[in-house]
Amino acid sequence: MSDGRAPLRSVSFDLNADLAEGFGTWSLTDDDALLDVVTSANVACGFHAGDAVTMRRVCARAAERGVRIGAQVSYRDLAGFGRRFLDVDPETLTAEILYQIGALRAFGTVEYVKPHGALYNTVVHHEVQARAVVDAARAAGDLPVMALPGGRLLEFAADAGLPTIAEAFADRGYTPEGTLVPRSEPGALLPDTAAVVERAVRLARDGVIVAVDGTEVAVRADSLCLHGDTPEAVANARAVREALAEPADPSS
Amino acid sequence: MSDGRAPLRSVSFDLNADLAEGFGTWSLTDDDALLDVVTSANVACGFHAGDAVTMRRVCARAAERGVRIGAQVSYRDLAGFGRRFLDVDPETLTAEILYQIGALRAFGTVEYVKPHGALYNTVVHHEVQARAVVDAARAAGDLPVMALPGGRLLEFAADAGLPTIAEAFADRGYTPEGTLVPRSEPGALLPDTAAVVERAVRLARDGVIVAVDGTEVAVRADSLCLHGDTPEAVANARAVREALAEPADPSS
Amino acid sequence: MSDGRAPLRSVSFDLNADLAEGFGTWSLTDDDALLDVVTSANVACGFHAGDAVTMRRVCARAAERGVRIGAQVSYRDLAGFGRRFLDVDPETLTAEILYQIGALRAFGTVEYVKPHGALYNTVVHHEVQARAVVDAARAAGDLPVMALPGGRLLEFAADAGLPTIAEAFADRGYTPEGTLVPRSEPGALLPDTAAVVERAVRLARDGVIVAVDGTEVAVRADSLCLHGDTPEAVANARAVREALAEPADPSS
Amino acid sequence: MSDGRAPLRSVSFDLNADLAEGFGTWSLTDDDALLDVVTSANVACGFHAGDAVTMRRVCARAAERGVRIGAQVSYRDLAGFGRRFLDVDPETLTAEILYQIGALRAFGTVEYVKPHGALYNTVVHHEVQARAVVDAARAAGDLPVMALPGGRLLEFAADAGLPTIAEAFADRGYTPEGTLVPRSEPGALLPDTAAVVERAVRLARDGVIVAVDGTEVAVRADSLCLHGDTPEAVANARAVREALAEPADPSS
Repeated sequence: MSDGRAPLRSVSFDLNADLAEGFGTWSLTDDDALLDVVTSANVACGFHAGDAVTMRRVCARAAERGVRIGAQVSYRDLAGFGRRFLDVDPETLTAEILYQIGALRAFGTVEYVKPHGALYNTVVHHEVQARAVVDAARAAGDLPVMALPGGRLLEFAADAGLPTIAEAFADRGYTPEGTLVPRSEPGALLPDTAAVVERAVRLARDGVIVAVDGTEVAVRADSLCLHGDTPEAVANARAVREALAEPADPSS
Repeated sequence: MSDGRAPLRSVSFDLNADLAEGFGTWSLTDDDALLDVVTSANVACGFHAGDAVTMRRVCARAAERGVRIGAQVSYRDLAGFGRRFLDVDPETLTAEILYQIGALRAFGTVEYVKPHGALYNTVVHHEVQARAVVDAARAAGDLPVMALPGGRLLEFAADAGLPTIAEAFADRGYTPEGTLVPRSEPGALLPDTAAVVERAVRLARDGVIVAVDGTEVAVRADSLCLHGDTPEAVANARAVREALAEPADPSS
Repeated sequence: MSDGRAPLRSVSFDLNADLAEGFGTWSLTDDDALLDVVTSANVACGFHAGDAVTMRRVCARAAERGVRIGAQVSYRDLAGFGRRFLDVDPETLTAEILYQIGALRAFGTVEYVKPHGALYNTVVHHEVQARAVVDAARAAGDLPVMALPGGRLLEFAADAGLPTIAEAFADRGYTPEGTLVPRSEPGALLPDTAAVVERAVRLARDGVIVAVDGTEVAVRADSLCLHGDTPEAVANARAVREALAEPADPSS
Repeated sequence: MSDGRAPLRSVSFDLNADLAEGFGTWSLTDDDALLDVVTSANVACGFHAGDAVTMRRVCARAAERGVRIGAQVSYRDLAGFGRRFLDVDPETLTAEILYQIGALRAFGTVEYVKPHGALYNTVVHHEVQARAVVDAARAAGDLPVMALPGGRLLEFAADAGLPTIAEAFADRGYTPEGTLVPRSEPGALLPDTAAVVERAVRLARDGVIVAVDGTEVAVRADSLCLHGDTPEAVANARAVREALAEPADPSS
């Protein structure tokens, strides 16, 4: 399965993206392109997207390229791509997340868990579901949890002694308070590749994000989330990768 | 989760049954009753039946009672309960079986893999699908394979160096050639509990099965398959268990 | 398909129940028993339960017995049996309800639409989803809507000029205000068959329900909802049917 | 929903294509482009593809543009896009096809039924499943059946008195015997747009297809199947449409 390419040069900051988000004949994310960019792959596990063949192929290629694998877990909602809140009870949610993590482990070493879509947004504030995700991460062998900083999920994960991975977004606008500009408002998305690259560089080098009003905001971020479901997003992701790449080791 | 009951007394022969074959609000198998009878639980993994909550509960209880867990893997066919042949390509079949095994491993230690329903019947003769199942068992860490003796699946599994578990059926009629009497013919099912118990005892003690015409047939069997989807089947299973139970250790 | 039985004797009040709530190999409701009791069958349409074979069989038998058919429509949630709130957008909800009604129409004449489970509860107060259900009922040819009286759904349906069918529950306790006693409180379920029969008779004859504290409450009810997912529920349903049956016509 | 465009100019031959073959967030066919080309739309009905929102939108636009709607019915196999043979029993197949036709009728007038994918190929020779499709078409009100000429499905449909629509393929190579060149062989696909257009013109004007060896073969064809799941296929479809368009009425 190797494509003979060298492993990626290391970058100064963890870059993550959602992968394997097709289903059967349908595809969405440009998995191969993203695996040349990211250092962490959030692999769909079959509940909002992700068939077994795609999951297996993405994990094999991620391993070849030294990309770590995370379980991108979701509500059970293929028809809605996991983007609608589902009022599932915590026992079911924990068991279903464990099921997804286990399924992904059939294809590679899972190093963290990240909720997808509506579940991602819900566990910022929904305490019962946030605890259910934490329970799953613990039962799966104390997996690190990746999420937005400042929400219930990372708070409960830290309380439970789990490693946490706070992420920032490469292409989203931030308010001066360090929250995301809602998608319905001006500035929700950065205007161009240059702005996205600047975001990444400032965050990696200085630990700050420039908000929509120009304010510099210190944010906690251990990883930067890239998108890859459009050609433009892939181009942005590549530009960020290039900007953050470590100089090649001249002795190698 | 413990119910305070003692572990099962050991039996002189491995007894297996299909468990966790409900889905959400629907149930089919009397899981708790069967977990008091069997020594091997073929746990449904979500493709023909088996939701995550039920899988988790059954695995927890199996562990408590010393029952080993096997992955009962299937075509992806909830609507048909995995009972219809599906002409799936081998790459997909292998990946989907790995997915199912992985999902079950989230809930317990999986000690073998057993195909379900139409897949079970197909891999007796369908070489491509039989090899796909073997590929999955190997990729899952050289899992033992449980199946009917004499078919392609166990042949290919043995060729690949996998442990094999040949099973016989407690309540099905056998021909003098050692094959099952088709369900459409007289004698397809043993008439009563006494006959089922006799089947189990002769097999465990003497390694023979009495065929429909009275012939004694030597069969290879490492495990005896019980059914548990009707009250009569559960009663039969209990009677077999009782008949095969080792005497209790008087010193304990 | 006829079983040779006479059509049901008419009753003095419409009786409805949920039917066809199995899926493939799994069954839940005792469809045949209920079709001897009810005058209106709320047939599951495949989104929370209901496979095509069962839907077709139930509709054929309903037609034989003079039972009218309603579309019991649901969120798309087989795994949760439609019992979890799903934050689906109204365009999707309307289209999915139309899809379900259309599918059921393949098997019989659909005379009304009734939401199921979490959707039933949600449209009591959720205006956007209530309007989406009304939009579907209108687009389906101005179908009558069956629901709890007093909620948004029947209000919006009436505003839209749709016929409405208010229902009461045969086995649930009512408060003096005419609302249901929550399931977590004493009196949520009527204690025995006699109480259920009394409920039905008082409602059909006098238009009142006796609340948990003995108060007589006048309620609007055009139909009485029976349950049929347990043997006790079926027995209750039969007793209600018997109590409400019109005297047989001596001349026939 | 109208886009203000004029209805399509009529063409001298019926052109059909598969539409609505996305599911939720995923899309496949360029539905809007195809609705400007075809005169018959084979609309996916949810079993291999096709969510309710897309079905509704495609049907509304088809009605605006005077494109007739057919039910593109499939095995229940979203994960496999209906491309794998499923050994479903005829009772289930008939009921599931009725279900799909009914669901589509919620969104428009269904004028024919066409099997999809593996079902399409299977009913060429599989008599039991071919009869099951015919049973569904009859039970759905004697719907015309679209399929390859020469197979069991059209034979049984004609025997049952159903109108039949034989189709030819715009971009597939034919043998001198009038069958399709297998996809694994040279000439399976026509080489370029010019060849596709020539195919369409010869068929529409002369009723013949030029086979891979240059032979002219008389084929029965009432409709020409176009593809639209790649940009090239859409370009081919447009070129065919242009070539077959009737001259605009100068008086209008």
